Amino acid sequence: MSHAVDTRAPWRVSLGNIIFNSDTPAGRAFDLLLTVLIIASILVVVLDSVARIHQHYGALLHGAELCFTALFTLEYVARLVTARRASHYARSFFGLVDLLTILPGVVALTLPGAQYLLSVRVLRLLRIFRILKLARYLSEASVLSTALRNSATKIIVFLSVVLTMVTLIGSLMYVVEGPEHGFTSIPTSIYWAIVTLTTVGYGDIAPGTPLGKTLASLAMILGYGVIAVPTGIVTVSLTQAQRARQSFVTCSRCGLQGHEGDARFCRRCAEPLPPEAAADPERR
Amino acid sequence: MSHAVDTRAPWRVSLGNIIFNSDTPAGRAFDLLLTVLIIASILVVVLDSVARIHQHYGALLHGAELCFTALFTLEYVARLVTARRASHYARSFFGLVDLLTILPGVVALTLPGAQYLLSVRVLRLLRIFRILKLARYLSEASVLSTALRNSATKIIVFLSVVLTMVTLIGSLMYVVEGPEHGFTSIPTSIYWAIVTLTTVGYGDIAPGTPLGKTLASLAMILGYGVIAVPTGIVTVSLTQAQRARQSFVTCSRCGLQGHEGDARFCRRCAEPLPPEAAADPERR
Amino acid sequence: MSHAVDTRAPWRVSLGNIIFNSDTPAGRAFDLLLTVLIIASILVVVLDSVARIHQHYGALLHGAELCFTALFTLEYVARLVTARRASHYARSFFGLVDLLTILPGVVALTLPGAQYLLSVRVLRLLRIFRILKLARYLSEASVLSTALRNSATKIIVFLSVVLTMVTLIGSLMYVVEGPEHGFTSIPTSIYWAIVTLTTVGYGDIAPGTPLGKTLASLAMILGYGVIAVPTGIVTVSLTQAQRARQSFVTCSRCGLQGHEGDARFCRRCAEPLPPEAAADPERR
Amino acid sequence: MSHAVDTRAPWRVSLGNIIFNSDTPAGRAFDLLLTVLIIASILVVVLDSVARIHQHYGALLHGAELCFTALFTLEYVARLVTARRASHYARSFFGLVDLLTILPGVVALTLPGAQYLLSVRVLRLLRIFRILKLARYLSEASVLSTALRNSATKIIVFLSVVLTMVTLIGSLMYVVEGPEHGFTSIPTSIYWAIVTLTTVGYGDIAPGTPLGKTLASLAMILGYGVIAVPTGIVTVSLTQAQRARQSFVTCSRCGLQGHEGDARFCRRCAEPLPPEAAADPERR
Repeated sequence: MSHAVDTRAPWRVSLGNIIFNSDTPAGRAFDLLLTVLIIASILVVVLDSVARIHQHYGALLHGAELCFTALFTLEYVARLVTARRASHYARSFFGLVDLLTILPGVVALTLPGAQYLLSVRVLRLLRIFRILKLARYLSEASVLSTALRNSATKIIVFLSVVLTMVTLIGSLMYVVEGPEHGFTSIPTSIYWAIVTLTTVGYGDIAPGTPLGKTLASLAMILGYGVIAVPTGIVTVSLTQAQRARQSFVTCSRCGLQGHEGDARFCRRCAEPLPPEAAADPERR
Repeated sequence: MSHAVDTRAPWRVSLGNIIFNSDTPAGRAFDLLLTVLIIASILVVVLDSVARIHQHYGALLHGAELCFTALFTLEYVARLVTARRASHYARSFFGLVDLLTILPGVVALTLPGAQYLLSVRVLRLLRIFRILKLARYLSEASVLSTALRNSATKIIVFLSVVLTMVTLIGSLMYVVEGPEHGFTSIPTSIYWAIVTLTTVGYGDIAPGTPLGKTLASLAMILGYGVIAVPTGIVTVSLTQAQRARQSFVTCSRCGLQGHEGDARFCRRCAEPLPPEAAADPERR
Repeated sequence: MSHAVDTRAPWRVSLGNIIFNSDTPAGRAFDLLLTVLIIASILVVVLDSVARIHQHYGALLHGAELCFTALFTLEYVARLVTARRASHYARSFFGLVDLLTILPGVVALTLPGAQYLLSVRVLRLLRIFRILKLARYLSEASVLSTALRNSATKIIVFLSVVLTMVTLIGSLMYVVEGPEHGFTSIPTSIYWAIVTLTTVGYGDIAPGTPLGKTLASLAMILGYGVIAVPTGIVTVSLTQAQRARQSFVTCSRCGLQGHEGDARFCRRCAEPLPPEAAADPERR
Repeated sequence: MSHAVDTRAPWRVSLGNIIFNSDTPAGRAFDLLLTVLIIASILVVVLDSVARIHQHYGALLHGAELCFTALFTLEYVARLVTARRASHYARSFFGLVDLLTILPGVVALTLPGAQYLLSVRVLRLLRIFRILKLARYLSEASVLSTALRNSATKIIVFLSVVLTMVTLIGSLMYVVEGPEHGFTSIPTSIYWAIVTLTTVGYGDIAPGTPLGKTLASLAMILGYGVIAVPTGIVTVSLTQAQRARQSFVTCSRCGLQGHEGDARFCRRCAEPLPPEAAADPERR
């Protein structure tokens, strides 16, 4: 947040508070209304893609979409006007999402045939997360995301190993099975290996030769052991995020982080830690 | 439980004890009999749905069903009569289940063609859970349900993220693959995304284009990492529910910590422990 | 083990030690030879079931099978003769397996057509576990089996819930989808529900109607959350079996079990515990 | 590493440092260049296997492959020349991989038809792991590999049980279903059992008889419980590998336990901790 002097007119400040915050009753009501509108507009997109519904209620859904586009355009303009810095909002992630999800509706007014383009509107779903983030009533989500962020490096290492495995297994199966059983190229074989190792198993491509079946069996049993690894990583990470209650205080002398929640002195240099380390009530 | 004066006749009180409780031998015998009857009646429903069995033993199974309906109707009336408050029972969850599962049999007496309606009788399975709940001989179930209840919020947050993912992935695949490979609408594509991300992988719909296969591969690897999250949540929750019995009292003589929840003496030096060790209800 | 006086002749005692124990070099050599024989005989059974191999090498494999049957019959007789109590061995689990797996070979000498009966010989695999059990060189297996045994109750409770779920979901899908999409009966629908909830997903039966697909999607997401439970159960149980190092000593005064590994006094009645509680080196 | 006197000429020593180490900027640049070359050459192999790409860009890809082979041959010669002991490098695992992955390109110069042989070049992927190992910038990988190595015995025991299960289940299904539903031999049935128990579920083979479906359902529910075991094993092992950094030293002033492995001062009272806290290598 910028600490510069706020030069907006009072009505822009109070309207901006309603739109961007959710601390006041008006702000919460706005968020609720917006959530309902977003979900309704996504339902319209989803239903309109069904051929039979499009045939019968196409005009109705098109009308509803026009309304939603008008409302969201209005909202976008209001956000631009009331934002502390319009350009900052317009270039932010959610600002781009807001723009991107009203453009197809605007285009559809002039070019009604661009049906596939309209699917972009599903991205409106992402806008719900901004509301959830504002409302902060899902504190559990932060535990989950902390756990995932902490184990991100391990998961990337693990995914590299998996990618190497599927490339090697896919190439081997391409050589063993060949095009007659659907293994028409190495990319297709790698696709098969991913479908198999993740235990999805469509069956659109399946080994046909005894040697291929043996190799596939080995790959599956390997995958059986391998699928355990990300689960273990996330579980350990969640355990730590949940239990350790590690503070995020930094030692002012040596810069060490990751102190236990009850730490009063830095364990590396014995410097006293600021008292917030143990007393922060918002962290779980 | 109501603390009002019990105005029921003595025979109703003692019959109600047999039916509603399982503390006495008669109550346990009644529960056992009821469990056997329920399972037998469900077997009748299940077997009757098989065309070949219905052809040969249809009349027999129909007769058995009449008996079960008669017995369960009798039981329902007995519950109504002996309940402390008949209306309270009739409107309770299990009261409605009891009524709902005898109605189809009663209807089948007059309208034998309503075969699909008869499937409602499978709901009788739910009645077994009341008996299990009464008997309470499955204390393990409470650990499981406590763990699930504690992690319910996290699971809901997680499911919201999953629902958003399948909507976005489904819409993307609808645009990329189109109707010729089975992705006929966004709902169908979302169904495909759910089938894929949960690693069920029927194969009734599978991507056909190289781009679609690449996106599907990414979705599967994503799902590979994502499937780890609920497991981690439940494991952490179960660990806590299991560990909750461990007290955090310190022995006043030797300083040992980590006593079991039922400990009355220090296991290292036999010093009596303070009584809070086992009685603190608020510790997690 | 019987503590009665051993009345066997000396040669029977020493032969029995070779056959039944694995403490001596001769006993270990016998176990190794037996393991090789068992695996070779199973390979014969497995290979003989392949039509092309049976066509070319059928006579050879049949001859090998005769040899194996002769050797295993010899071994069975030797076990009967040298066992401390022949009848006790003959009626034990492994005694019955030993008998059961030589009978088909004996029958095949007279009735060569009974091919399916020959598959019983695969049960010889179970005999390897006796050898492993004797050798005890897989101490890790006991940690795994302890963990599984400790969580058996929870797993049974969990499986009951899963069985109820698949019955209810299967019946519902039978009503919704009907026979035209493969849901020909409630048992078939329950089979589909099991295939789906365990994320196997063959695709031999798949929902065809929009309502059926919606219900199937809900069932899959439910299964997504549910699959986490047994993993959590086993993980918690393994953690305890691995870490808690709980002794299996019983307090001589109050009978309490499940003391911590470092316990010197009963935590319930302060009675001193026997010193083996903490010093047993074989427990991990 | 040999401690013999280094008899290499100075230019060989400095070139060898660039090639074999990654401590210097030049070494890191060489590693980065090599990684890019490897990934590019693998992309060439993968793309060349797609029929349509091979048709249009076959000559281009063949030329690129010639360049890569020339460069990798140059690198192999450079490694031979600059290695402290050429024969030691040539017989090492990565030395053999290096040789194996340039041979197909050399052969392809003279025998352009040996297309399947060219797939060996995908093994170049393994060479990336040497670079990662040298760079050691993925310390997380060691936690993962430690955890997997510690639980290797348990995983092998578990896999033996799984192999026994699939053999028994496969043989049983071969007897029950027979060749008409695809269970043409015991190896094929074992393949089906592996596909089922690992929840891959292609659906290329699926039970057709009621008895077969019942047995398959039991196998799936069994697999549902069984899939939990490797996850539990890895999670416990990861927890230990993660926690191994925590020391079990007690503060001599305030008695606090559970210090982090790198702690030099008590975090509660700032008392210096005994040095064994961080240096004990045997603690698990």
